[in-house]
Amino acid sequence: MSDRTEISSLGEFGLIEHLTKNIELQNASSIVGVGDDAAVIDHFGKQSVISSDMLVEGVHFDLMYTPLKHLGYKSVVVNVSDIYAMNATPTQIILNIAISNRFSVEAVDEFYSGVYAACGNYGVDLVGGDTSSSQKGFIISITAIGEIAPDKYVKRSTAKKGDLICVSGDLGGAYIGLLFLEREKKIYLENPNIQPDLESESYVIGRLLKPEARKDIIEFLEKQNIVPTSMMDISDGLSSEILHICKESDLGCRIYEEKLPIAEEMRTAAYKFQIDPTACALSGGEDYELLFTISQADYDKITLSEDISVVGYMTEKEKATHIITKGESTYLITAQGWNAFKKRDQ
Amino acid sequence: MSDRTEISSLGEFGLIEHLTKNIELQNASSIVGVGDDAAVIDHFGKQSVISSDMLVEGVHFDLMYTPLKHLGYKSVVVNVSDIYAMNATPTQIILNIAISNRFSVEAVDEFYSGVYAACGNYGVDLVGGDTSSSQKGFIISITAIGEIAPDKYVKRSTAKKGDLICVSGDLGGAYIGLLFLEREKKIYLENPNIQPDLESESYVIGRLLKPEARKDIIEFLEKQNIVPTSMMDISDGLSSEILHICKESDLGCRIYEEKLPIAEEMRTAAYKFQIDPTACALSGGEDYELLFTISQADYDKITLSEDISVVGYMTEKEKATHIITKGESTYLITAQGWNAFKKRDQ
Repeated sequence: MSDRTEISSLGEFGLIEHLTKNIELQNASSIVGVGDDAAVIDHFGKQSVISSDMLVEGVHFDLMYTPLKHLGYKSVVVNVSDIYAMNATPTQIILNIAISNRFSVEAVDEFYSGVYAACGNYGVDLVGGDTSSSQKGFIISITAIGEIAPDKYVKRSTAKKGDLICVSGDLGGAYIGLLFLEREKKIYLENPNIQPDLESESYVIGRLLKPEARKDIIEFLEKQNIVPTSMMDISDGLSSEILHICKESDLGCRIYEEKLPIAEEMRTAAYKFQIDPTACALSGGEDYELLFTISQADYDKITLSEDISVVGYMTEKEKATHIITKGESTYLITAQGWNAFKKRDQ
Repeated sequence: MSDRTEISSLGEFGLIEHLTKNIELQNASSIVGVGDDAAVIDHFGKQSVISSDMLVEGVHFDLMYTPLKHLGYKSVVVNVSDIYAMNATPTQIILNIAISNRFSVEAVDEFYSGVYAACGNYGVDLVGGDTSSSQKGFIISITAIGEIAPDKYVKRSTAKKGDLICVSGDLGGAYIGLLFLEREKKIYLENPNIQPDLESESYVIGRLLKPEARKDIIEFLEKQNIVPTSMMDISDGLSSEILHICKESDLGCRIYEEKLPIAEEMRTAAYKFQIDPTACALSGGEDYELLFTISQADYDKITLSEDISVVGYMTEKEKATHIITKGESTYLITAQGWNAFKKRDQ
């Protein structure tokens, strides 16, 4: 980077103006955007859906291998993903950041370029937020707002016994991508002259650094007139999320190992770390795929999408939460996943 | 504190459940609260007003003299104040926190007890949020959501020439409170055996640690059928805020020093620091009073409230932004306020 502009040279209000001056509101529902005490949103008879996430440097991301533009993009994706997971359409975001003085205006611009790229792709307006300093590191808090026709939202607690469990895309890639980047970071810290060669791992690394929210799946479901009986996004790993749906819906489940969607690139990469790809698919987080249940009557329609896998079905609560392996063994699903597989007592 | 429970003993989901298990939703508009991918809000034909703020330990607050319960209360107040400043009614909040491992469950409970106390006082529901760890310190991000009848919100940009400038309550107290607490902190760090005696300064310290949002003023205005022509809350100091209104409304202003609302306790306290009380009232932040403009026709009605002061009026832009001192000198108002008073060139 050729120039470095200190944030202090703009001041707080100058920085906000610099970062937001080119915003053009895309949604008719965005009545008042950045620049007042609050944003005003008109949902024209629809209901609002609101979600918020915080991303903390050193906890949720490592700037040593996360380009700021990707970080900005992902910060938006993580939040609109929650809105899609309610079967709603994201319309606005509010972005708070806190930054230490090690960041320049150019660095913040990079981050915002990713934010605006995601806003464009998902059709959401940035309508407000707060910019402040931190004692250490970069902290991001995004609130996403969406809209939905009254009472058409889909919760986690409404799955029914016998419903099919569906997963979009493939799982575990982001986790393996993280393992590669952490390994390369360690090598680099030990010897800064070694250049990493991650070209062949671009798929899994892309899964971590450039996730997309599954807007297309929500559109497919709507087109096919399928209303999921329950839904959530997969941020913490399939095991953890299906346990949420089971607990909230007061049901059990059976998931089949052979049905888990695993990309060939992820499988190959997992073997390099001598890790079971199934374990990654079950417990690796940050894929931002959708997990949802549908009525069995919708099975034929679901098969029209190559990007949705039926991985099991919901059972009564007494049958607990199980995974059936390829060798036909039955294990309890635990939120800790692959490093805590526990043989069923039977 | 007798017991200390490590947050790690609960885990992330356990902590969220622990903190949110007693929530009872107060607003009919809160359809889905904590515990799903997103909250769902139905504004029943009203518009949503949304605002968000971030509070960072060491930047916005110092836990050495800020009780956690007060911090929780104030975090909510700061945000609902922005909603009132749009002339709207706050209805929901979303709370994200990031905490380092130096905080125990009991400490987080203290913070939440303040959050819930404020939610009760202002009638808002906590409907979601994210709890994560930080590398250092305590970071709070709150998004407040409010509602208002369509197009009845009040912006900063709509003041008219000749409108009267009004301020609620009194100004500068929170700033002087901060000076006392910073001084006591310094004394304590030099000699921990000296106990501070701040009893006589309870008013100004309370202004800093226990601010309230001016719900009562919004209710008064509604009762009197007064719609402010512009409004914002005073978080950065009157000088800074009136400049926002002037800039956004493309106008100038005249403010009279003798009209500035100054509490006797603040005046006395300011003299102890050999600071001009007027300077504090102009530039001290964090009072969370309301600054608004009204049509001259509403003057008689405004005088019915003892808690609202008319401090000046809006002029055309060419007349710039001025304060008239008690000695009838005219100074340009600057955002830096009291340490940057600049004699008018004339």
